[in-house]
Amino acid sequence: MDLDAIVLGAGPAGLSTASALARRGGSVAVIDPATRAGGAIHTVKEDGWRVELGPNTLQLEGKLDADLLGELGLANEIQEADVRGAKRLIANRGHIHALTSNPRSILNSELLSWKGKFNLLLEVFQPRESIQGETVRSFAERRFGTEVADRLFDPMINGIHAGDPGRLVLEYAFPSLARLESNHRSILLGLWRSPTEPRKIVQFAGGLHRLTEAMVGQLPQEALHLQSTTTLIRRDNRGWNVAWRNAHGEESGARAKSLIITAPPWQWAHLACGEILKPVLHAAEIVEAPPVALVVRGYEREQVQHPLDAFGLLVPHSEGRKVLGVLFPSSTFPNNTPDGSVQLACFIGGARNIALGRLDDDQLREVVDAELGDLLGVKGAPKKEWIARWPRAIPQYTHQHGRFLEALASTEALHSGLHFVGSFRGGISLMSTLRRGSELGSRLPRS
Amino acid sequence: MDLDAIVLGAGPAGLSTASALARRGGSVAVIDPATRAGGAIHTVKEDGWRVELGPNTLQLEGKLDADLLGELGLANEIQEADVRGAKRLIANRGHIHALTSNPRSILNSELLSWKGKFNLLLEVFQPRESIQGETVRSFAERRFGTEVADRLFDPMINGIHAGDPGRLVLEYAFPSLARLESNHRSILLGLWRSPTEPRKIVQFAGGLHRLTEAMVGQLPQEALHLQSTTTLIRRDNRGWNVAWRNAHGEESGARAKSLIITAPPWQWAHLACGEILKPVLHAAEIVEAPPVALVVRGYEREQVQHPLDAFGLLVPHSEGRKVLGVLFPSSTFPNNTPDGSVQLACFIGGARNIALGRLDDDQLREVVDAELGDLLGVKGAPKKEWIARWPRAIPQYTHQHGRFLEALASTEALHSGLHFVGSFRGGISLMSTLRRGSELGSRLPRS
Repeated sequence: MDLDAIVLGAGPAGLSTASALARRGGSVAVIDPATRAGGAIHTVKEDGWRVELGPNTLQLEGKLDADLLGELGLANEIQEADVRGAKRLIANRGHIHALTSNPRSILNSELLSWKGKFNLLLEVFQPRESIQGETVRSFAERRFGTEVADRLFDPMINGIHAGDPGRLVLEYAFPSLARLESNHRSILLGLWRSPTEPRKIVQFAGGLHRLTEAMVGQLPQEALHLQSTTTLIRRDNRGWNVAWRNAHGEESGARAKSLIITAPPWQWAHLACGEILKPVLHAAEIVEAPPVALVVRGYEREQVQHPLDAFGLLVPHSEGRKVLGVLFPSSTFPNNTPDGSVQLACFIGGARNIALGRLDDDQLREVVDAELGDLLGVKGAPKKEWIARWPRAIPQYTHQHGRFLEALASTEALHSGLHFVGSFRGGISLMSTLRRGSELGSRLPRS
Repeated sequence: MDLDAIVLGAGPAGLSTASALARRGGSVAVIDPATRAGGAIHTVKEDGWRVELGPNTLQLEGKLDADLLGELGLANEIQEADVRGAKRLIANRGHIHALTSNPRSILNSELLSWKGKFNLLLEVFQPRESIQGETVRSFAERRFGTEVADRLFDPMINGIHAGDPGRLVLEYAFPSLARLESNHRSILLGLWRSPTEPRKIVQFAGGLHRLTEAMVGQLPQEALHLQSTTTLIRRDNRGWNVAWRNAHGEESGARAKSLIITAPPWQWAHLACGEILKPVLHAAEIVEAPPVALVVRGYEREQVQHPLDAFGLLVPHSEGRKVLGVLFPSSTFPNNTPDGSVQLACFIGGARNIALGRLDDDQLREVVDAELGDLLGVKGAPKKEWIARWPRAIPQYTHQHGRFLEALASTEALHSGLHFVGSFRGGISLMSTLRRGSELGSRLPRS
């Protein structure tokens, strides 16, 4: 069988690449050991509840992102977040402060002291510095002061990356911030001069699973090989020869001009790639992706004191709490929850609380009971509960990420037709991963 | 007698114009009713003390100002202010705060609260607005917030203009600030992008009176007519015909191509100009120049608790004190005061304390005793004391100043060869007045 591309991994990156290629009439095989497609996307529907146990929403950054959803045939299913979801809550010293997507709201809130706000604005006059490998924490302190680093950057890193700002490297984790400094000297002036459109938070009536369905739906039925593991990957002068075995022990094989690796790096040792991936294997194995546990609960509205008039609550590490943050999915997309109920999604674990990410269900329940009670005034037993564990949740773009990126680039350069796509490179958000997959699928060579 | 110019007023503006013209070989007569030349410049020397009872120092803004002093033959006599004089003290709520000429020192001092400093920096993001006739107070509040207006602008206006920031108009009183907003949108960013050299504070070993002497010295002896008042000013097609009478009742007369009026506006009604000045007389008579009393005292160093390590102390109106400010001339130019003594110059009165500016000597002494005791810990009777009163001290560039400027310009346009120069137009500082006079004297037509 001669194909245009063989894609390893049926998560967002793999499906996005494969479906973009298929839309151009390209032929493709997608191989994944999992029992279902979609990777981290995991929508559960039950008794009128729609729960996301993986990524929670899509954040569209511009027209190209909307176009991509259009190409997937999802344009009519897009639901924009309820305006109440525009607020982000941040805990500080036991109080909860509300910010909006307008950066000015930071200045109006009491999250920062006047001294903190002063140091934030002083950024305008800070000199341009280019510090190789600077951590997000150092960057935030250097430009905005300790308070902004503690109260603003820290909870965002906690909530978005489940990460440690003292270990994430700015140029990998937030390249746009690094660019703002190098192009404009001042981040604030840069944002002021060329304000970015706020990201649009969207969902689909059928949940993020609709993304998986839409992408799978654009592939020929025989293209998707689930519960399948590769047994041999070799390159010869006619292309990539890949063999795989399915759950029934049946072997298949194909040859393709392009080989797209979207499986998570920590699985690459099992891809049967022989020598090809050897130069990246060490770096791939030490890619950090700390465990995160997700406990989603349904309550009667009356059980929750807090108005939940926000997208969610972020909690900085210094609060000493056991949750990284709590999303309020029923505030953002009310149709995912029966009337009169609310849905709360608690994230536990991450780079600075690895042990918490590995608690068992009963321990998690205890943590969530206490935290939701303290933070949001939640009382009584939940009506519903879903627990998901991501033993390796989000790749952390730390110092060693640089060597990993170099290894990926040099391996791609060495083996023509080989491409790596995934949240392990170029951005952890679901939308950016879809985007990179789609871009690659749009330019892969076809026979 | 045919001259190039007749100058009314032998103050800084008149002498500067006349001497610049004379340096080019031009012929000039300078007429002034006063008994001595120099106008507001009034240096007193006594027992090793050198006291300025008018302007206190010269503030050089750039090379052109230094060049002008060179042309007056004063280059070798220039003394720059002692570095201790670089600090400016500002009183606030009974405390004294030190600033330097570096604007950053505002951010490091405790004069402003963190909230005040925050609002100061927020100026960077304020929109550009052009508000016709905006007062200095409104401008300061609009761009920098109430605290900066109260604690920074107010004492500066008190100390520099003896003025009321709520009545001075920005575009007249601080045109450079208005320009910064229109050119750069943000004052702070404008200053950041094109920092101005700090002004150099200078004096002469012989006091500011050396300026008068130098300018008078560049005029032919017969050019200066003191104790003389004009009795007739008429223009015909050959020029300006001016007659004047001296203290002995002797009449003189001359004709000149140019007539330069540098006398203060409130004296113009007595210039015998007939119809010529009629269109400006009303505006000239209501030029505000509130009374200021100056009490200069000499003390033993030990009588003063405060280290006096500054140029002086400015006092905002809100402090409810009776002095506008206190200069420390012996700190700025130690050679004006005998060793072991200090010199303090107290300013009283101004636009918001007109009654205080008219106190009699005993009342002034009482005020100064109390204020110096409170503010600087001065104890006991002074060794020396000089009191000067300026019934009309500093022209206030208020709303009506605009109409005055228009009247001046249209009168100049109507009568060729007529020029107005003085602190009543274009800037109140001694240096800027000298500069404008010199510029005019350099371009007056010569026969």
